[in-house]
Amino acid sequence: MQNQGERHERGLKTLSAITGGTGKAVVEGLEDIAPDLAEWIIAFSYGDVLSRPGLDLRSRQFATVAALTALGTASPQLKVHIEGALNVGCNPGEIVEVILQMAIYAGFPAAINGLNTAREVFKER
Amino acid sequence: MQNQGERHERGLKTLSAITGGTGKAVVEGLEDIAPDLAEWIIAFSYGDVLSRPGLDLRSRQFATVAALTALGTASPQLKVHIEGALNVGCNPGEIVEVILQMAIYAGFPAAINGLNTAREVFKER
Amino acid sequence: MQNQGERHERGLKTLSAITGGTGKAVVEGLEDIAPDLAEWIIAFSYGDVLSRPGLDLRSRQFATVAALTALGTASPQLKVHIEGALNVGCNPGEIVEVILQMAIYAGFPAAINGLNTAREVFKER
Amino acid sequence: MQNQGERHERGLKTLSAITGGTGKAVVEGLEDIAPDLAEWIIAFSYGDVLSRPGLDLRSRQFATVAALTALGTASPQLKVHIEGALNVGCNPGEIVEVILQMAIYAGFPAAINGLNTAREVFKER
Amino acid sequence: MQNQGERHERGLKTLSAITGGTGKAVVEGLEDIAPDLAEWIIAFSYGDVLSRPGLDLRSRQFATVAALTALGTASPQLKVHIEGALNVGCNPGEIVEVILQMAIYAGFPAAINGLNTAREVFKER
Amino acid sequence: MQNQGERHERGLKTLSAITGGTGKAVVEGLEDIAPDLAEWIIAFSYGDVLSRPGLDLRSRQFATVAALTALGTASPQLKVHIEGALNVGCNPGEIVEVILQMAIYAGFPAAINGLNTAREVFKER
Repeated sequence: MQNQGERHERGLKTLSAITGGTGKAVVEGLEDIAPDLAEWIIAFSYGDVLSRPGLDLRSRQFATVAALTALGTASPQLKVHIEGALNVGCNPGEIVEVILQMAIYAGFPAAINGLNTAREVFKER
Repeated sequence: MQNQGERHERGLKTLSAITGGTGKAVVEGLEDIAPDLAEWIIAFSYGDVLSRPGLDLRSRQFATVAALTALGTASPQLKVHIEGALNVGCNPGEIVEVILQMAIYAGFPAAINGLNTAREVFKER
Repeated sequence: MQNQGERHERGLKTLSAITGGTGKAVVEGLEDIAPDLAEWIIAFSYGDVLSRPGLDLRSRQFATVAALTALGTASPQLKVHIEGALNVGCNPGEIVEVILQMAIYAGFPAAINGLNTAREVFKER
Repeated sequence: MQNQGERHERGLKTLSAITGGTGKAVVEGLEDIAPDLAEWIIAFSYGDVLSRPGLDLRSRQFATVAALTALGTASPQLKVHIEGALNVGCNPGEIVEVILQMAIYAGFPAAINGLNTAREVFKER
Repeated sequence: MQNQGERHERGLKTLSAITGGTGKAVVEGLEDIAPDLAEWIIAFSYGDVLSRPGLDLRSRQFATVAALTALGTASPQLKVHIEGALNVGCNPGEIVEVILQMAIYAGFPAAINGLNTAREVFKER
Repeated sequence: MQNQGERHERGLKTLSAITGGTGKAVVEGLEDIAPDLAEWIIAFSYGDVLSRPGLDLRSRQFATVAALTALGTASPQLKVHIEGALNVGCNPGEIVEVILQMAIYAGFPAAINGLNTAREVFKER
């Protein structure tokens, strides 16, 4: 049974591995209005879920990019996670493949909007 | 420039690699009402998109399982693609990880419903 | 300025034109738990909106079938409105075209699930 | 049985109670392109539905804020209804709680985007 | 800083207050395939989020019923939470009001399907 | 059996009929990041699907406008297709009717946001 400190430490490490500075900025940006959400993102999303050993971080980021592209309602988060995918070793071509594939499952507009977000990220780097 | 025959052949091969007999049955089941949709699934979805060399089939299936779990509107297709994930070498534990991860991005009900679909597939094999 | 009675009468007429007996049964089925929703469907949805002269009923049903197929969360209502499309003079082939077209805008699973609903309706007639 | 004038009057009163000047501006902004939609919002949404006595306005606004946060496709309307929640006596902390809770049911991106909308509203007042 | 045991205890208490035996059964039903998801539901969803003091349980359940009705993709969870709403003191009429209200924000099919789920729950009690 | 050249030619012709210069610009804008998606839009979406003889282009555009309004996640594409609807002979009043009708099936926020997109298109012409 783990204490909160361990969850927080592990979460911060995974947050940093996936999102670099960007994710940390998002989390800190929430502290004025909802500090507990900031902590849940660290301890639960990154500490409990994304730190689990059963799947590599590359596959995890492919899954996240796929889901956020398909949903089409989370463009700022898609941007963070395309960057995250690059940070954990996915190459731009692979990320484009995942987004293109969403044309089949969520329609062409979802794929086109996802690609436009990817282009922004690729240009900024 | 490719002709329709090449797209169809390549699509059938990838359809069979990913879905085994199940996907073929779905496609054939459409032929009474919309034979062209059946052909689009083979030639476009599997022939043009899912046969592309830029991403391995394991990663492609993780992406599809993630998206269909997150959308929550395509339970029969999620079932086919969890089976597809197993067929291309994803193990059950990895598939469960992808579905669990969707709790973060699409909420707990999406993850719970996705897991219930996964359980059905795992039991049938 | 119209009174409630006129809205109700006009709604009932359009409800009957589009859905025949089926829609009336749906509306009556709501009367035990939410009689006002039943009345809103008649007076607002059918009386205020679907009775408007600016668009023919065939085009209106194509729009409804398209939207419900794309959303993927309203399978009982899609069934009612595919029947409604037939009732106002759309032929089965045209309805299939609308549903197929949703593969582009909402993905193949939405189109496949929509077609399976259409097949049920066509078989029952 | 009510006439249109009563529905309109009651709707205007509830529109004003919930949204103050903001909602009225939204409704008037629709009059150039779709005056009937403006009237439906007043007479149906506010007059028929939101004026009903069976639930207090605070609970109604919690429900609306929850739904619009979860859907993630209606950011301008979420803004209007967070303001509406404040207008009927919900305090900022309670509104934040409702939005945070959506992380469970619709995922963290929905909650984060909802909070960013709430922050805008809180800052403007 | 809290340890896992405290989160788990608090979560179990709130789970029991809201869902009675039903929620516990759902959680236990996940233990074969994903015991960690079961624990997250207890410790995170019920322990961290739904146990927070800033909003009463009645308002929380109105928010959840609203969101799940609007999303339209989580019918088993909607059923659990309509029951949960009754358990924490919402009366059937108020729950019906929340669901009816969703016709405005998510369309009539969402409201009709939500009411059909509510009728099931009311009949079983 | 058709070769790729025929699909491409037919697609370009329909793309031009529906979207005029706008759609071509969207497609060309994808060529830096995903030239194959650009080609799929031409050969598959416009060549295979939207060129089919079973439904007239006016009805096809009503269906697309309805679906994109209801989904609420594809505002740039909705803009292109409202323009496309005008290009194939739908008049502004009919397009407004289709969007208004979505208030019933996808809620008022979807209809309001769709109308705001339509107003932009109408003003630019």
